[in-house]
Amino acid sequence: MQNHLIEPSKVDEIISKVHLDLPSEKVNFSDSLGRTLAENIYADRDFPPFDRVAMDGIGIHHSSIDNAKNLFIIEDVQPAGSSQLKLKESENCIEVMTGAILPEGTDVVIPYEWTERRGEQMFVSDFKHAQSFTNVHRKGIDVKKGEVLIKAGTIITSAEIGILSTVGKVEVVVKALPKVAVIATGDELVGIDQIPADYQIRMSNCYSIQSRLQEEGISSKIYHIVDDKEALKVKIKGLFSSYNIFVFSGGVSKGKFDYLPQVFEELGVVKQFHGVKQRPGKPFWFGITKNNQPIFALPGNPVSTYLCANRYLIPWLNRELQKENRQPKAILDSDYSFDKPLTYFLQVKSYYNSSGELCVSPTTGGGSGDLANLSIADAFVELPSDRNTFIKGDKLPIWFYKK
Amino acid sequence: MQNHLIEPSKVDEIISKVHLDLPSEKVNFSDSLGRTLAENIYADRDFPPFDRVAMDGIGIHHSSIDNAKNLFIIEDVQPAGSSQLKLKESENCIEVMTGAILPEGTDVVIPYEWTERRGEQMFVSDFKHAQSFTNVHRKGIDVKKGEVLIKAGTIITSAEIGILSTVGKVEVVVKALPKVAVIATGDELVGIDQIPADYQIRMSNCYSIQSRLQEEGISSKIYHIVDDKEALKVKIKGLFSSYNIFVFSGGVSKGKFDYLPQVFEELGVVKQFHGVKQRPGKPFWFGITKNNQPIFALPGNPVSTYLCANRYLIPWLNRELQKENRQPKAILDSDYSFDKPLTYFLQVKSYYNSSGELCVSPTTGGGSGDLANLSIADAFVELPSDRNTFIKGDKLPIWFYKK
Repeated sequence: MQNHLIEPSKVDEIISKVHLDLPSEKVNFSDSLGRTLAENIYADRDFPPFDRVAMDGIGIHHSSIDNAKNLFIIEDVQPAGSSQLKLKESENCIEVMTGAILPEGTDVVIPYEWTERRGEQMFVSDFKHAQSFTNVHRKGIDVKKGEVLIKAGTIITSAEIGILSTVGKVEVVVKALPKVAVIATGDELVGIDQIPADYQIRMSNCYSIQSRLQEEGISSKIYHIVDDKEALKVKIKGLFSSYNIFVFSGGVSKGKFDYLPQVFEELGVVKQFHGVKQRPGKPFWFGITKNNQPIFALPGNPVSTYLCANRYLIPWLNRELQKENRQPKAILDSDYSFDKPLTYFLQVKSYYNSSGELCVSPTTGGGSGDLANLSIADAFVELPSDRNTFIKGDKLPIWFYKK
Repeated sequence: MQNHLIEPSKVDEIISKVHLDLPSEKVNFSDSLGRTLAENIYADRDFPPFDRVAMDGIGIHHSSIDNAKNLFIIEDVQPAGSSQLKLKESENCIEVMTGAILPEGTDVVIPYEWTERRGEQMFVSDFKHAQSFTNVHRKGIDVKKGEVLIKAGTIITSAEIGILSTVGKVEVVVKALPKVAVIATGDELVGIDQIPADYQIRMSNCYSIQSRLQEEGISSKIYHIVDDKEALKVKIKGLFSSYNIFVFSGGVSKGKFDYLPQVFEELGVVKQFHGVKQRPGKPFWFGITKNNQPIFALPGNPVSTYLCANRYLIPWLNRELQKENRQPKAILDSDYSFDKPLTYFLQVKSYYNSSGELCVSPTTGGGSGDLANLSIADAFVELPSDRNTFIKGDKLPIWFYKK
């Protein structure tokens, strides 16, 4: 009857072997934010695409500096966005604007700050060691046409959006997003718009999981299946063809109506583990369907579900989407004891101290049923099972669920 | 002609005095993710709403323990989601499921792990110090009906979504989002779907700003206005009635066609500063309209615009939306020199070292025109103006633009 419980690190190991085989798809660049780029992005031209004026001022030829010339007749003005002018007499100048193409026959920009206007002429008392191409952002110096600007696999953030628009990538090939089903089980659950009877509660886990996925840019669909073995079997089987990932909440404890493990077995799902040496979230069940779809069957307690989603599901999903896997540690700001031989995920509120270091305070409450505490805290720190006492100053792995 | 340049800290001080007066609005809870809660959320009932079974097992009366009774006749099964049963004989038991209401006449739950089934009876060899309400999550122990679960001003994350659904808040009052206009200026700009001439470039700053805002859950509208003083004046004036915040890109340097500061002045905008002792982003202009709308007029260079947006605009906006203001510091992992009396915002790639500490590597490139480098880096660190040399191990304020 007792399951073989495994360590959280073993959970990581098992889950990390499951991979999503997601196709690519083309989306409009304005819909690409947060997506995983599935093609290299190349420079469609040199950058800068022309010798670009880098300061507002006057464009001259460097021979004028060599000749110690100080007074320049202004031939013309070269604005940004206009075709290239030509300096007619090499000892004259053209006023040039930041972002403009450098006029033909000029190769130095003397900024206005070093000049003094004298009628139709410009006077420069000090060239401050200016030479050929001073204050000119030279064509192709940043990137040559054809070079890779962004590699496939990069997550498209606002920084990449700037680059995509620069090179005119109106459509972008990205990795398709996984299709996720979030399935609540439990006869005690009623809809959020219902008034529950005394012995009922409203569905909430499916919404917190769904919105946690949404925070990562992943949409999902919610289902509720009652605690009836046949109904579970039929409905779950029906969902297998439509989704890549299944997240269940409830139905995996030792209760008489916790049919899920048995139903999964009958549907040919290969159990990977049932039970983790952790609190909260001990009854966590995980398996893989015949078509390599992972099933995260999380315990029904709200804090347990939420911890398992944040500690295992979201990091795995982000790795599959090629997002960076980051593992900060936080400094515990007060002593804490937990005397069971389990990994304990302590709810904490994080902050940066005056030295800019990441610190955490255990939040009050912390009973695994205390949902409201999840709002006050913003992360869990992972207290390893081999110690019972944790002291102020200890550095512990932290799992954020709020930004 | 030379503007009076101010320090970045002075920019913070000036901008922090501008406040958005945003109304409240009611949204469906499924649209509330990321929004700022504008009402307190109260418990609509006690939590737990009933004496809740916390383990799968049997419910007994504690007098059986006192009487050292070991064998219990099973009267019935109390599933989760069913109305409350009643134990008929106090020396018997009822099987109880996690999440169920505790049957009347029972006050202790003995988990299955401690029991052994003997036909229609359950045998318990060891009560492990169980007593009244062991393994029972008592009614109201977490929260009493009417207590505040989430305070107004909290950002609605997936954690809050769980609570909102628990209490059946189908509609939620949140702070309205600001209306933001992002305005590109510059005759050299063409649309992203255009092939630019040699002296033209595609618009990109407006898209990176727009998507940076989108990453914070704020939508905006993009405009492009050419470098024509009258056109600028008429169009900008026309926008004043429709937006709370204006972000300009370009048109604030010293060029002959950098009309914005003058146009703003003629429209009655009160300039707060023009020019910051920083690189990139020195020509940053900031003013406030007669109706208290801030105008962030950012330099046209892509990295300058992006730095100013991330260092000033986004943190200010987040503070106005009551998001937490966090200031981590990162450890520089190699020496770096910058020999100008300016605050330098160094592009860096951040990572956590094996001790879980936040570290940064300067990324190559870093010319203020090197847009591609923004994709390789993920943050800026702020090198103060009073030092020129920064050494490995220095802790510096970091401004992330990627998660």
